[in-house]
Amino acid sequence: MKIQIINGPNLNLLGSREPDVYGNQTFEDFLAQLKLNFPAVSFLYFQSNIEGELVSAIQNASSAACDGIIINAAAYTHTSIAIADALAAVAIPAVEVHISNVFQRESFRHHSYVAPKCLGSLSGFGLYGYQLAVDALLQHCKSQ
Amino acid sequence: MKIQIINGPNLNLLGSREPDVYGNQTFEDFLAQLKLNFPAVSFLYFQSNIEGELVSAIQNASSAACDGIIINAAAYTHTSIAIADALAAVAIPAVEVHISNVFQRESFRHHSYVAPKCLGSLSGFGLYGYQLAVDALLQHCKSQ
Amino acid sequence: MKIQIINGPNLNLLGSREPDVYGNQTFEDFLAQLKLNFPAVSFLYFQSNIEGELVSAIQNASSAACDGIIINAAAYTHTSIAIADALAAVAIPAVEVHISNVFQRESFRHHSYVAPKCLGSLSGFGLYGYQLAVDALLQHCKSQ
Amino acid sequence: MKIQIINGPNLNLLGSREPDVYGNQTFEDFLAQLKLNFPAVSFLYFQSNIEGELVSAIQNASSAACDGIIINAAAYTHTSIAIADALAAVAIPAVEVHISNVFQRESFRHHSYVAPKCLGSLSGFGLYGYQLAVDALLQHCKSQ
Amino acid sequence: MKIQIINGPNLNLLGSREPDVYGNQTFEDFLAQLKLNFPAVSFLYFQSNIEGELVSAIQNASSAACDGIIINAAAYTHTSIAIADALAAVAIPAVEVHISNVFQRESFRHHSYVAPKCLGSLSGFGLYGYQLAVDALLQHCKSQ
Amino acid sequence: MKIQIINGPNLNLLGSREPDVYGNQTFEDFLAQLKLNFPAVSFLYFQSNIEGELVSAIQNASSAACDGIIINAAAYTHTSIAIADALAAVAIPAVEVHISNVFQRESFRHHSYVAPKCLGSLSGFGLYGYQLAVDALLQHCKSQ
Amino acid sequence: MKIQIINGPNLNLLGSREPDVYGNQTFEDFLAQLKLNFPAVSFLYFQSNIEGELVSAIQNASSAACDGIIINAAAYTHTSIAIADALAAVAIPAVEVHISNVFQRESFRHHSYVAPKCLGSLSGFGLYGYQLAVDALLQHCKSQ
Amino acid sequence: MKIQIINGPNLNLLGSREPDVYGNQTFEDFLAQLKLNFPAVSFLYFQSNIEGELVSAIQNASSAACDGIIINAAAYTHTSIAIADALAAVAIPAVEVHISNVFQRESFRHHSYVAPKCLGSLSGFGLYGYQLAVDALLQHCKSQ
Amino acid sequence: MKIQIINGPNLNLLGSREPDVYGNQTFEDFLAQLKLNFPAVSFLYFQSNIEGELVSAIQNASSAACDGIIINAAAYTHTSIAIADALAAVAIPAVEVHISNVFQRESFRHHSYVAPKCLGSLSGFGLYGYQLAVDALLQHCKSQ
Amino acid sequence: MKIQIINGPNLNLLGSREPDVYGNQTFEDFLAQLKLNFPAVSFLYFQSNIEGELVSAIQNASSAACDGIIINAAAYTHTSIAIADALAAVAIPAVEVHISNVFQRESFRHHSYVAPKCLGSLSGFGLYGYQLAVDALLQHCKSQ
Amino acid sequence: MKIQIINGPNLNLLGSREPDVYGNQTFEDFLAQLKLNFPAVSFLYFQSNIEGELVSAIQNASSAACDGIIINAAAYTHTSIAIADALAAVAIPAVEVHISNVFQRESFRHHSYVAPKCLGSLSGFGLYGYQLAVDALLQHCKSQ
Amino acid sequence: MKIQIINGPNLNLLGSREPDVYGNQTFEDFLAQLKLNFPAVSFLYFQSNIEGELVSAIQNASSAACDGIIINAAAYTHTSIAIADALAAVAIPAVEVHISNVFQRESFRHHSYVAPKCLGSLSGFGLYGYQLAVDALLQHCKSQ
Repeated sequence: MKIQIINGPNLNLLGSREPDVYGNQTFEDFLAQLKLNFPAVSFLYFQSNIEGELVSAIQNASSAACDGIIINAAAYTHTSIAIADALAAVAIPAVEVHISNVFQRESFRHHSYVAPKCLGSLSGFGLYGYQLAVDALLQHCKSQ
Repeated sequence: MKIQIINGPNLNLLGSREPDVYGNQTFEDFLAQLKLNFPAVSFLYFQSNIEGELVSAIQNASSAACDGIIINAAAYTHTSIAIADALAAVAIPAVEVHISNVFQRESFRHHSYVAPKCLGSLSGFGLYGYQLAVDALLQHCKSQ
Repeated sequence: MKIQIINGPNLNLLGSREPDVYGNQTFEDFLAQLKLNFPAVSFLYFQSNIEGELVSAIQNASSAACDGIIINAAAYTHTSIAIADALAAVAIPAVEVHISNVFQRESFRHHSYVAPKCLGSLSGFGLYGYQLAVDALLQHCKSQ
Repeated sequence: MKIQIINGPNLNLLGSREPDVYGNQTFEDFLAQLKLNFPAVSFLYFQSNIEGELVSAIQNASSAACDGIIINAAAYTHTSIAIADALAAVAIPAVEVHISNVFQRESFRHHSYVAPKCLGSLSGFGLYGYQLAVDALLQHCKSQ
Repeated sequence: MKIQIINGPNLNLLGSREPDVYGNQTFEDFLAQLKLNFPAVSFLYFQSNIEGELVSAIQNASSAACDGIIINAAAYTHTSIAIADALAAVAIPAVEVHISNVFQRESFRHHSYVAPKCLGSLSGFGLYGYQLAVDALLQHCKSQ
Repeated sequence: MKIQIINGPNLNLLGSREPDVYGNQTFEDFLAQLKLNFPAVSFLYFQSNIEGELVSAIQNASSAACDGIIINAAAYTHTSIAIADALAAVAIPAVEVHISNVFQRESFRHHSYVAPKCLGSLSGFGLYGYQLAVDALLQHCKSQ
Repeated sequence: MKIQIINGPNLNLLGSREPDVYGNQTFEDFLAQLKLNFPAVSFLYFQSNIEGELVSAIQNASSAACDGIIINAAAYTHTSIAIADALAAVAIPAVEVHISNVFQRESFRHHSYVAPKCLGSLSGFGLYGYQLAVDALLQHCKSQ
Repeated sequence: MKIQIINGPNLNLLGSREPDVYGNQTFEDFLAQLKLNFPAVSFLYFQSNIEGELVSAIQNASSAACDGIIINAAAYTHTSIAIADALAAVAIPAVEVHISNVFQRESFRHHSYVAPKCLGSLSGFGLYGYQLAVDALLQHCKSQ
Repeated sequence: MKIQIINGPNLNLLGSREPDVYGNQTFEDFLAQLKLNFPAVSFLYFQSNIEGELVSAIQNASSAACDGIIINAAAYTHTSIAIADALAAVAIPAVEVHISNVFQRESFRHHSYVAPKCLGSLSGFGLYGYQLAVDALLQHCKSQ
Repeated sequence: MKIQIINGPNLNLLGSREPDVYGNQTFEDFLAQLKLNFPAVSFLYFQSNIEGELVSAIQNASSAACDGIIINAAAYTHTSIAIADALAAVAIPAVEVHISNVFQRESFRHHSYVAPKCLGSLSGFGLYGYQLAVDALLQHCKSQ
Repeated sequence: MKIQIINGPNLNLLGSREPDVYGNQTFEDFLAQLKLNFPAVSFLYFQSNIEGELVSAIQNASSAACDGIIINAAAYTHTSIAIADALAAVAIPAVEVHISNVFQRESFRHHSYVAPKCLGSLSGFGLYGYQLAVDALLQHCKSQ
Repeated sequence: MKIQIINGPNLNLLGSREPDVYGNQTFEDFLAQLKLNFPAVSFLYFQSNIEGELVSAIQNASSAACDGIIINAAAYTHTSIAIADALAAVAIPAVEVHISNVFQRESFRHHSYVAPKCLGSLSGFGLYGYQLAVDALLQHCKSQ
């Protein structure tokens, strides 16, 4: 099984940016640990601050025959129709993840263009949310 | 570890109600299986169609010294300030679960009074979402 | 033919509450007369001030194999997604009735969560509206 | 007893227009049957696609000493203050009818300028709604 | 000097319609008196319940080389872009008149598509408002 | 007959302020001419830039036994509930005047707190609007 | 004199729930003291987390011939038309009390369906607000 | 091939009305030229200022077995549900045309009830837009 | 103990203005009686129709070392950020009073800029509300 | 004549993405055919998923001395002020094209920042819309 | 060069009011220092809590032949059309200053009626913002 | 001292784009002059049309140990949560600059996601605004 993880703007700062909101582990460290937890899964990882590169990454997941996408579009979650269109255009099940509980933050973070194009959405569980997303994708594939 | 699961209105119909949206397994069957998956966890289960009884169930979880709450407030998610107030009043970490992806449904289902009072929220993963919620609570306790 | 009539909050006061708006006949008196008018129909009647009990009454109409539901959800008409969900969950044709013309009253009474889940809706004809609703259900069954 | 039935735009197409929404009986056929059902009532019928002619028809019902108006203003229901003003200007009890359940359709069909100027309103019962409206007017006259 | 007076829907009922709002003089009686008050002015009068005929009347005022238009578009004031477009399309100064004080009535009567296309607007002075409008047009011409 | 004219903020600049919008005659010059036109009327005049002084001026018109008020509240028209309350508190018929056509300007100038507390309202006729207002008040008194 | 005090959801937690917002005295302790302060008043007390039971309690106050109602509907204040309807249906003067200053909290707590159906409303004075409410009811009865 | 062109209110003034917005060619002149450009197409032309006559014209296009409709509903574009309903009721492909770029004008011209009932919509190309619409209809028929 | 009472616009008319809304006692008469009821309290009283003078009065209460402010900002309640800022700037506990029940009146009277800057707010108890406010301030000081 | 065609995000998937909405021809195939149809026109083509690269492409069209721009900004149509600013900054006539009828889709696709900065806009004609856009640009140049 | 500085309500409290928001220097101290920094500029200073006096101060700046206005309208920034009208009425370049960053505060402080009538606007730089405003006015005069 | 200046989309056109709005000096020319005015400051300059590159530039300013950021996000000011998040993530004081007075332009330019994350914001002073921003940053550092 192959899963593409896609992280949006400012998530390259994980570990240093606002640690009270986002924790102090880098995503790279977390990813290493995630791979250990799911040895049967092959993970691809992409991060960009550029909306259009996230669009392309979703398209590429399709070319690369991924079985699932885990996407944390960060700030673009709330404004990007382009990312939502890309998810609708590819035929891969996706899970939306947010590290913080977006519903406890500013009201403009309560709306997601991404969520309706995904299998499901989860927020507020820290980096552990990515692990839950992998579980959800595995379960989804099993049940197909 | 003790976890209180609270289900809101019409969830007693699971297995028969709109199976294309909610699946065709009853919650009781699912719960039996969940207990097998987490033998170290003691589960309490409560369902009611009455908003105020859900409020009381949250208060009772506090008296019963539960370590976590998993709540699917169903229709009351979108209108009940009373349930949100109850979650804020007790000191127990809670996780919000929705079986269907609420963001793919009517716009009045996109707002949740419950979510900001929870540790985190997840939707769209079917009954499996409850299992993810248990994982999230276990992880949360471990990290405290 | 079996029809479940369900009345919402404060309708137990019919005959005494604001008689210029709701008339001065009790629902029990009216119901006796209605049964005389439709001897071939078996009527079940339920009133509650509690939203969740109205939800349960709708579910019970399904277990009791009713052929139709007549529902006046009163104040909950405008705020209850739970009642609407219950109507969607059971497979029984329903008719929404309001005694007063809700469109002549406060603007928050102009919206109904119940109406879109019903066969049809009528308001403003006093208690006679329930008789029209019975006619509508009979006609509907005949035409199926 | 004399009742003026007034139908608005596109209702001349009944029987051919979108039969899944509006059925496949012409209004003329239905009217013949309605007259048989109410031999004591004299029916006048008017249809127009022109808003102002509906206004005039309401005014004329007053000159013609009608005892009641049944009005299905169709699309003008949602936008015509002029028709509402005409109903307020004449002293004849009116009933609003819609063939389809307008509350199941686009949100701009949920608002009615006509309803608050009528005795009552009903929607969703097909052409049978006109028969219910006649019943309602007869009952109303009897109770005056 | 030639002035076209244009009255909209239901104003043909003046004298009988809701006399507490609109007074009990017919417009024809008032017009006779107006002509006496302004012997040097030639008045043309047009009333229609049909929006499009009001549009045409405005266009015709241009062909008839009128020096001014007095328009009470009644209910169409609040909804007719077509009438506003007609006033913008002809080069004749216009005055908007309302018999009642529209700002004391329903909020949907507070907006006017017509007013911004007129020289000025007045409301609340009863039929005397038309006389004020004539004065205003005479003054306007004098000052050009 | 005694009429109190009340002008609001920046109207002391008439004749110099934005002459393309407000003309280039001072109000004092205009007032002299107005007195000549209505020799039987005694005019009191008050201008202030201070909202509360306009409130007091309305109250004083009552003590001074004025028969009518002509008020151009200028910018306070759109924001002052205090002025509207003062007009409601005194028993004197008032007419609202605006020199420019407020409906051709910014949308925040389309709403008036003052208008619903007046007999009527007029806008767009330049300083001549005050003369029309005097006519309207005279006509109103005659008809009482 | 007989006064019914009605408390809504989560107010059974007073003394333990968020003490910085609601203080740390239980309502039972406070009530004992209140009875001492007003020996001539007979107090009935009812608390429920269930909206419909609050509706019934208001109806029962009428049957029990209470002279006044003091109601703190808590979270239902902002969403319950049913409670407002019950207050309108009984003929007993009511006073709305809130322990905290609701206007300093989330904007959804600024609207009250209950307040317009009461004699008056007060918020922000802690439990002492109930004592002020008793004073207000006594004063109201004295002045009738 | 037979195409019905339908023009709405004030478009009879083309060539004289606001030439900076709408150009200075009459529609009749343009139509003559259009017929020369498409000799194989039979054009029917209808213009009216009356909304309901536009509704009827759409219905008549169906009776006349037209292959396509080109509609410029002008001001009614933004307010007429009746015209949209007529387009939905007939089975003829339609193209919406606007002479000016409606998106550069007042915001109330940005919404169209007509567009969602058409094959496509175009605006801003002057009278040439009608020629593009013919091309689009021909292409559409070819591709069916 | 020293308390500054501040009354806003039109409250100088108490006793004469709209007696059905505000009663027929002057504030001066009421104040004399209030002083008798609270002999241990020294009252300062200020009324103005001018928003900025109310701002200054709040500032002066600070210089005069008042222990509490009772403010009825009347119409400015709903529009004055300046008064709210003044209350925030001084360190004196304040109570907001309204004579009528503002929640039974126009919707623009339902919002208060003043309330969130006060200890608490009360409305609907007539002039007696000022007495309740004194009680509330005394209780507040006692509990500090 | 030189025309720059600019396509936005996900349009590189044309031919494979949601073929029921966008057809199954690639843009490259279509472009080859377009060049055959307009041998006298030199076409430049640019596609990007990145908003800022579309901004640059519009700027480059100016440096490259293009005579016209055809732009389908896809998802960015509805959110990009930057693209609209770029179109306003260059002096080249532009035509907005959408393949699907955006007015039949989600309401967030009904607003365009791009359209008001273009000569005109068209939507719903499939890839043939680009050919209509070329016609429109040619006609525009001819008429300058 | 002559510059009029105008400060609005509660700014007379600078140095004592909420020092964490506004700092602890009085404006008088700051002004003395400002005069030292700009010896070639003659400063006039006016502060008032009264909106209408700020209007008059702007008018007086014109009579006094000032070359520039620096205005901090404080709370009136967000509600005063009268102040904006005064700025539009005089021909003096103005700069809007706010001591705190208004965009970090309540949303009602994000809108300014004053800003569009000024040369420019700045906020968030403390009292130093007034010095920047002087620089901006000097630069503006130099560039004219 | 080191300051990073960041300019957003279309600002590379300064000097040629809409010179009546933005002036006719290129930013490069202006920057040379700015460096002369502040010889003690080391300036870094970055411009991009791509939102995500602006995000990265803010992150890089942190790595490069800049003492301040001056950002003119142009069109992205109004839509970019990603840029605002980047400013919140780095610990460098920032000043928002706009060349034109954004409050005099379209209403969608009145909202800034960037401003609340900055020390302060200024708009309307042309390129001189960047110089004021440098002054503000120097003053800020001095006062720390």
